[in-house]
Amino acid sequence: MNYKKYKKFETIKLTDRTWPDREIEQAPVWCSVDLRDGNQALITPMDIDEKVEMFQLLVHLGFKEIEVGFPSSSQIEYDFLRLLIEKDLIPDDVTVQVLTQAREHLIKRTFESLKGLKRAIVHIYNSTSVLQRDVVFHKSKEEIKQIAIDGTKLVKELSQEFDEEVILEYSPESFTGTEVDYAMEVCEAVLDTWEASPERKVIINLPSTVEMDTPNVYADQIEWMCRHFKDRDRVIVSVHPHNDRGCGVATTELALLAGADRVEGTLFGNGERTGNVDIITLALNMFTHGIDPKLELGQMNQIKNIYEKCTKMEVPPRQPYAGELVFTAFSGSHQDAINKGMYAYHQRGEGIWEVPYLPIDPADLNRQYEPIVRINSQSGKGGVAFVMDTVFGYHLPKALQADFAKAIQNISEIEGEVSPERIYDTFKKEYIDLEYPYKFIKQRLIDISEEDGEHERRAEVTIEDHGEVKTLVGYGNGPIDAVKNAFNSTEDFLYTDLIDYSEHALTAGSNSKAAAYVQLRPQGEEKCEYGVGVHLNITTATIKAMISAMNRIYKNIKKEG
Amino acid sequence: MNYKKYKKFETIKLTDRTWPDREIEQAPVWCSVDLRDGNQALITPMDIDEKVEMFQLLVHLGFKEIEVGFPSSSQIEYDFLRLLIEKDLIPDDVTVQVLTQAREHLIKRTFESLKGLKRAIVHIYNSTSVLQRDVVFHKSKEEIKQIAIDGTKLVKELSQEFDEEVILEYSPESFTGTEVDYAMEVCEAVLDTWEASPERKVIINLPSTVEMDTPNVYADQIEWMCRHFKDRDRVIVSVHPHNDRGCGVATTELALLAGADRVEGTLFGNGERTGNVDIITLALNMFTHGIDPKLELGQMNQIKNIYEKCTKMEVPPRQPYAGELVFTAFSGSHQDAINKGMYAYHQRGEGIWEVPYLPIDPADLNRQYEPIVRINSQSGKGGVAFVMDTVFGYHLPKALQADFAKAIQNISEIEGEVSPERIYDTFKKEYIDLEYPYKFIKQRLIDISEEDGEHERRAEVTIEDHGEVKTLVGYGNGPIDAVKNAFNSTEDFLYTDLIDYSEHALTAGSNSKAAAYVQLRPQGEEKCEYGVGVHLNITTATIKAMISAMNRIYKNIKKEG
Repeated sequence: MNYKKYKKFETIKLTDRTWPDREIEQAPVWCSVDLRDGNQALITPMDIDEKVEMFQLLVHLGFKEIEVGFPSSSQIEYDFLRLLIEKDLIPDDVTVQVLTQAREHLIKRTFESLKGLKRAIVHIYNSTSVLQRDVVFHKSKEEIKQIAIDGTKLVKELSQEFDEEVILEYSPESFTGTEVDYAMEVCEAVLDTWEASPERKVIINLPSTVEMDTPNVYADQIEWMCRHFKDRDRVIVSVHPHNDRGCGVATTELALLAGADRVEGTLFGNGERTGNVDIITLALNMFTHGIDPKLELGQMNQIKNIYEKCTKMEVPPRQPYAGELVFTAFSGSHQDAINKGMYAYHQRGEGIWEVPYLPIDPADLNRQYEPIVRINSQSGKGGVAFVMDTVFGYHLPKALQADFAKAIQNISEIEGEVSPERIYDTFKKEYIDLEYPYKFIKQRLIDISEEDGEHERRAEVTIEDHGEVKTLVGYGNGPIDAVKNAFNSTEDFLYTDLIDYSEHALTAGSNSKAAAYVQLRPQGEEKCEYGVGVHLNITTATIKAMISAMNRIYKNIKKEG
Repeated sequence: MNYKKYKKFETIKLTDRTWPDREIEQAPVWCSVDLRDGNQALITPMDIDEKVEMFQLLVHLGFKEIEVGFPSSSQIEYDFLRLLIEKDLIPDDVTVQVLTQAREHLIKRTFESLKGLKRAIVHIYNSTSVLQRDVVFHKSKEEIKQIAIDGTKLVKELSQEFDEEVILEYSPESFTGTEVDYAMEVCEAVLDTWEASPERKVIINLPSTVEMDTPNVYADQIEWMCRHFKDRDRVIVSVHPHNDRGCGVATTELALLAGADRVEGTLFGNGERTGNVDIITLALNMFTHGIDPKLELGQMNQIKNIYEKCTKMEVPPRQPYAGELVFTAFSGSHQDAINKGMYAYHQRGEGIWEVPYLPIDPADLNRQYEPIVRINSQSGKGGVAFVMDTVFGYHLPKALQADFAKAIQNISEIEGEVSPERIYDTFKKEYIDLEYPYKFIKQRLIDISEEDGEHERRAEVTIEDHGEVKTLVGYGNGPIDAVKNAFNSTEDFLYTDLIDYSEHALTAGSNSKAAAYVQLRPQGEEKCEYGVGVHLNITTATIKAMISAMNRIYKNIKKEG
C-alpha cells in the first residue's frame, strides 16, 4: 500500500498540558444533533412524523439543547421547525438550535424560520482549515475571518428584532485542520463583534469535523484554546467530534478533560461518514464511574426501537451498552466469573456494582439477564449453570454443572449456539424425566416419635420396576435416609451410597415446587450419577431425584442385565 | 438513573508521563486473535472450513502472528490446529499462537496439539485483578502469582521436549483492574522463572480485558509498566484491548505512544461483548499518516466479504474505512468541498492526498468513487455535479450545476435518496432530449477562406419547427457564431444571446462523443436556459445543445403562443 501518499496535519503540541492529570467529574451540556447532522447522513432522511417522534424521544431522554435542522437549506427542515413552534412542541426548558452557513441570505431565511420562538441558539459556521481555505474557498485568512465577522454582525442585527433571546454559536468548521492561533483569532473576532461577556456567553464550537489524529492531539488543541481565550468566562467551549479514526468517544472524553463544557453528538453515533460521537456511550461511560449522566437512558431497547424506526439504521450488535451481544459472555471462564461475581454482589448487599466482564448492570438499562450468557461450544460449566439459574431457577450443584455442561457442549459442537430452551429441555430429558426401568408411583412418609425424644422416619415408596409395581419400606433418622434405606432394602435394586444431596424452592412462595438433587454411587463403582426431582412436596421431589439417579446408573453404568 | 451504584477502579496516575509528547512512528507487531477471541464470541462459531478460510485471509493480509485457538478447551480448535499442521498450511514466516489457562492438564493437552510445529507462541494467562482475586478465585496475591509461576514452569519443562522454538506469552488477565505494582510482581516472577533475556524475550501481554477508564489511564498504566520492568529488553510489551467504553482504538493508540510493541486484535473489531480492538482501523489510521501499516488492506470489499461469510457478522455501515457509508458525503457543502478538493488534488499532481472530508483515498481500498456522494434533499450542487462528473463524465458548467441541483432536490424531497441512474435520466430528460417545438435534422458547415487570410463559416442547419422542416443559413467567424446567426436569421425563432458555451470529450479517444453546453438568453429577458447536446461531431453537439436550450426557453420562459 502506497503510504507515502499521506502526511499528517501538524498542529500544536502542548508540553505543559494538564488534561492527563484530570478526571471527568460531571456531565457536560449535551446537545443532540440527531435531527441535523444525523438526519442529513441518512439514506432515507426522516419525514416530518419521524422528526417529531425523534424530537420527542430526545426531550424525553433529557436533552436540553437540540439542533433541529438547517432550515434555510431545505424546505422540509424549515417546515419541521415551524411545526414544532406552531404546535407548541418545545418544552420551556428545551432550547432548539438551528444551523446555517455564515451567509447573508441563509441567515435571513433562518430568522424567518424562528418566528414565535422564545429562545433559540443560532449556530453559524464557516470553514477555516488550511486545506479548505486553499482548495475550496481560495480566500486569505483575513477574508475567511471576515465571513465569520459579517455573519455574526447579521445575527446580532436580526436578533435585536427578535422577541426573545438568541444565543450565538459559532463553529470554525474543520477546526482540527486549522492552525490554533488562527482559529483563536477568528473566534475572538466573533466574540468581540457579538460583544460577548460572562452574562452574554457565546458557544464556541470546535468541531473535529474530520478526525485527523490520535485523541490526545485534539485534547491538546482544546486545552490550548481554553487557555488562550481573552476571557474564558464569556465562552461556552463546545466540541463536535466525528469518528473517522474510530476514536470519537475517546476524543470527546479527552476534550472534556481538556476543558470543554458542552458536547454535540447523536444517539448511537449516527452522522456523516463514520458518524458523530455517540452520546449514549459517553453518558453511560460516566454513569459507570458514578457520575450523574444527566440523561435518562434506562429504557435502552425502547430508545433503540425508536431510533431504528426513525433512521432506518440498525444499532450494531457490538455497540457499547446497546448492542444485542454486549451482555453476552461466550467464554466459559468469563461465564464462570460472572456467575461468581453476581453471587458475590448479591451476598455483599452493598449495592455497589462490581461484576467481572459486566461494566454495567444490564438491569440498569432494562435489559434482561437471560441473554447474558449464550451457550456455544466455547462455553464452560459456568455459562450453563448461569442459564439454568437465572432463566429457570435451578441452582445446580457443582459436580452436576460439570456433568451437564458436557452434554450441552456435545450438542453445541454439532449445532452451534444452544438456546436456553434447548438447554432446559436437555436438562429435563437427562436428569428429570427418567422413568425406566424405575418409575415413581406414590410415597408415604411416617414420623415415628417416641416419648424420650428419639424419633425415626418410615418411608413407604411405591414404584414400578420394569413394569412391575412394588412397595418398598425403609427406616432412617431423616426422610432421605429412610427413602434410601427403602431402596436398599431389597436385592431387586442397586445398592447405592448417597454422595450429595441438596434441594431448594424453585420459586418464592409457599405454593412453589421444590427441586431436589441427589448424587448416588453404586457400591463397588467409582462413577456417580445425579438425578433431579421436581415436586410440590420436597420428599416426593427427593424420591423422584433418587429414582432418576438410579435410572441414569442403570443406563450409564450398570446397563441392562 | 442510580449512578451511585458505581465507582471507578482507582489505579496509578503518572505525573511524569511522556506518552502525550510522542507520535506513532511505526506499526507494531500485529497479532490476530480472530480465530480465538473473535471466534469464541460468535453466535455460530466458525466450522473447520471457515477457520481455514479465515486463517488464509489473515496470512494473505500479512499477519505474522496468529492466535489459532484454545486447543485444550475444545475439540474443534484442537482438530483445526492439527489440520493446519498436517496439511502444512502455516507459512514459514507465520507463527501460530495458542491460548491456555495456566493449569496443568490444559497446558499438557496444549502441547499435544502442537506436535510437528517448528515454532509456536504458547500463551498462558490467569486473572490477577482485585475483583477476580476476591470474588472468583478467593486466593491471595501470593497464590495467584504462584499459578503464573507454576504455569510458566510447566511450559518451560514441556518446551524442552519440543522440537523447536516455543515463545512464551503471559497475560495477567484483567490487567486494567489490577494494581500495577502487583501486575509487575507477577510478570517479573514469570520472566525470572522462564529465565528471560534479550535473546529469549517473553511476550508480556497487558490486556484491557474490560475497558474500565478513559484511554489516557490505560496509557499511564502501560507507560508505568514499560518503565518498571527490571530489564525492558527481555520483554515484548503486548496489548489486547477490548472496547467496552467504545475507546478500543484510542486505548491502543495511546498504549503505543506509551511504549507497547505489539497489538492483539481482530478484523473489524469482532470479539467478546463490544469486541476486541479493530486492527484494520488501527492500521489504516497509521497509513493515512504516512506510516507503513505492515498489512495489505487494499482489497477492502474482498476482506469484508470473507469476514462476513466466516463470522456471519456484518460490518456496520459506519465502520471506519470499511463501512458502506463512510465514503458517502450527503451534505451539499461537503460534496462541494470534496469536488473542489479532488480537482485540486489532480491539478497539483504531487501525489499527496489532501481532500476535505476524505481522510483516505477510497481508491486505496479499491472502493469506488461513484458511491462517494449520495444525493438526498440535503445535497447541494456540488454533490450532483460530482455524480455527473465521476460516474457519467459530464463536466457541468457552474450555473448549470445550480440549475440542475434544484431539479434533483425537488425529486429528493419527495422520494428521499436519488440514485446516480435517476440523476442521469433526469439530466437527459431536462437538458438533452428536448425535441419540441424544435428538432435537429441535419447540419452542414462550410469553411469559407479567402486569399488574404480572412475566413468565415457558413452554417446550414435543417430542423423541424412545430413539425415543419426548415433549413436556416448563417455566417460567423467561427462555427458556433455561424450557427447562432443561422437561428437568428429568421423571425420564426427566438432571438437569443449566447451567454455561456463549453464542450468536452465524454470519454478518451478519437472516437468518443462530445458534450456541448450552451446557455442562451432570449433578448429582453433576464432568465437564461442551458441546453446540452451530445454527438460524435462537436458542431452537431453544439447545434443540438442550442436547440435544447431553445426548447427550454420555449417551455420555461416564452411559453406557447
